[in-house]
Amino acid sequence: MAGETVSRENKQVLLKDYITGFPKESDMVLKKSTIDLKIPDGTNGVVLVKNLYLSCDPYMRNRMSHTVGSYINSFTPGSPMAGYGVSRVIESSYPDLKKDDLVWGFTGWEEYSLITNPATLFKIQNTDVPLTYYTGLLGMPGMTAYVGFYEICTPKEGESVFISAASGAVGQLVGQFAKLMGCYVVGSAGSKDKVELLKNKLGFDDAFNYKEEEDLAATLKRYFPKGIDIYFENVGGKMLDAVLLNAALHCRVAVCGMISQYNLDRPEPVRNLFTLVSKRVRMEGFMVGDYYHQYPKFLDLVLPLIKNGKITYIEDVAEGIESAPAALVGLFLGRNVGKQVVAVAPE
Amino acid sequence: MAGETVSRENKQVLLKDYITGFPKESDMVLKKSTIDLKIPDGTNGVVLVKNLYLSCDPYMRNRMSHTVGSYINSFTPGSPMAGYGVSRVIESSYPDLKKDDLVWGFTGWEEYSLITNPATLFKIQNTDVPLTYYTGLLGMPGMTAYVGFYEICTPKEGESVFISAASGAVGQLVGQFAKLMGCYVVGSAGSKDKVELLKNKLGFDDAFNYKEEEDLAATLKRYFPKGIDIYFENVGGKMLDAVLLNAALHCRVAVCGMISQYNLDRPEPVRNLFTLVSKRVRMEGFMVGDYYHQYPKFLDLVLPLIKNGKITYIEDVAEGIESAPAALVGLFLGRNVGKQVVAVAPE
Repeated sequence: MAGETVSRENKQVLLKDYITGFPKESDMVLKKSTIDLKIPDGTNGVVLVKNLYLSCDPYMRNRMSHTVGSYINSFTPGSPMAGYGVSRVIESSYPDLKKDDLVWGFTGWEEYSLITNPATLFKIQNTDVPLTYYTGLLGMPGMTAYVGFYEICTPKEGESVFISAASGAVGQLVGQFAKLMGCYVVGSAGSKDKVELLKNKLGFDDAFNYKEEEDLAATLKRYFPKGIDIYFENVGGKMLDAVLLNAALHCRVAVCGMISQYNLDRPEPVRNLFTLVSKRVRMEGFMVGDYYHQYPKFLDLVLPLIKNGKITYIEDVAEGIESAPAALVGLFLGRNVGKQVVAVAPE
Repeated sequence: MAGETVSRENKQVLLKDYITGFPKESDMVLKKSTIDLKIPDGTNGVVLVKNLYLSCDPYMRNRMSHTVGSYINSFTPGSPMAGYGVSRVIESSYPDLKKDDLVWGFTGWEEYSLITNPATLFKIQNTDVPLTYYTGLLGMPGMTAYVGFYEICTPKEGESVFISAASGAVGQLVGQFAKLMGCYVVGSAGSKDKVELLKNKLGFDDAFNYKEEEDLAATLKRYFPKGIDIYFENVGGKMLDAVLLNAALHCRVAVCGMISQYNLDRPEPVRNLFTLVSKRVRMEGFMVGDYYHQYPKFLDLVLPLIKNGKITYIEDVAEGIESAPAALVGLFLGRNVGKQVVAVAPE
């Protein structure tokens, strides 16, 4: 308890003010704070961590706006942003974690964070995989893919699966799960390179660049002449409307996110909802936070698949916390190829 | 087999031509045909019936348009329309039905019909209730309410239920099922009289006239300050969008129909679908035809409720087949109060 307290520079990414429309790098600012590398006196059940990797995820956009009664709290302007990350414990007064433990979970967009609700952290037990995976494949996006596909889509062998934002953190994994189950899998993405990755590296049966398609409903009809059994929805808007026109009987739509809509003042219209009746479609939204109790089961499935080379995962790693604003902004421009990670400190 | 064949006048309601927009009486025409009251020689497994009651149902609008690959076949211009009805068997070469049996199911919009697929008919076993009920409470709409509420809504005691088109053939029964389960139930309808019926005769906790509300989202917020757990969707469009803004966590939307959209060239936009994620909403379309194997179970539930006065049912009976076109058109103008029936012949 005695001893000298070491003070360190702690670079932080702050949200300047609430935003509307597309986020810009200039909406965030890098601040050089300092932090005492010691748990404050009189606090119990807290953990001081050094952040190694930060995760850029589309849902974060919703926290950059001022919303009341939303599903998630807005960030506080002038304070560090927050998100999922991989961190190393420096000091702990929380019984389940000790110095040098590795964890993933919610942390600050800064080099060091004091976590006051460490029960939300997952202790990393398996370190024979890249640690970055705990921001993606083995973290929130991986669990999202797992829950969304197996629980919400209720898939069966041989079904036809369409995935939007298919090369993203979640989509790439959904596609591989679907292939492992014996489904026919097509993905959409926003560049030629991503389409190539889907077809040649991620094992999708087919893929297309939605930016090159004039009539999405006709495009989907081409790839799914018998209709879509399962749609894993990451984008919303026009794509959803086109999918509804191509739904097969008893189609299931797992609504994971709607990234195409997050920066719009007003969401795009969806008109083809009568398909829900005529094709007996089930559309279901979900949030991974409701399913974290299944995380051990998820690891039991996925870790062997990784080790046997049955699953691959594409990451886009930006170096240094200084690059975090651009990395986050890039998500909404489709700049990232695969899971967008920010490497903050060497492991 | 011998004997004289009796020929009878057989008034029929024909669709003149495929329509767009709101149906008008003049889209249909009454034709005086004649029919031999005898099963044609050489036909087996057919039933000749006298139609007693015909049912006017919103889905019929979709058969009046020329659609390809729709969930239901278009009517044939120049031929009699068809729909659910209650009929008496005149002659049968189908083993499960005999002369004087009462049946409900698909029949022609005419006084006498030759049914070539009698396996689709339900034999009426209980005649100590009004026979008209087999077009509504004990027929397709009743089964629709039953399946939609108990199977699709997965209701629990104490939940908050909203029903649109609540005084209609389906809605009035859903509301009563929900009350029997101990739910809080609010309905919307299109006139002051219907609102009164919902509150005073059908046992709804509350009801409102959607035509008098300027901001449906604000209206729903008033009736459901804690949000809507279950929405039984009969209308679509603006109402659905307003419900999404008022969805409680894990809200279920049973999509039964979207009558407000059937006469539009282009469906109204729905924009608030991100709620599916933020509130983990399940929206599910269904069609009663997938559930008719549950009909005996449905009767077991509902017949005692009728006999004990626990369920009531409001019907709007138009007299004579000549009134059928106006009765059908009236559905889309909200003219009917309760289930719209056409009485074709005395029982």
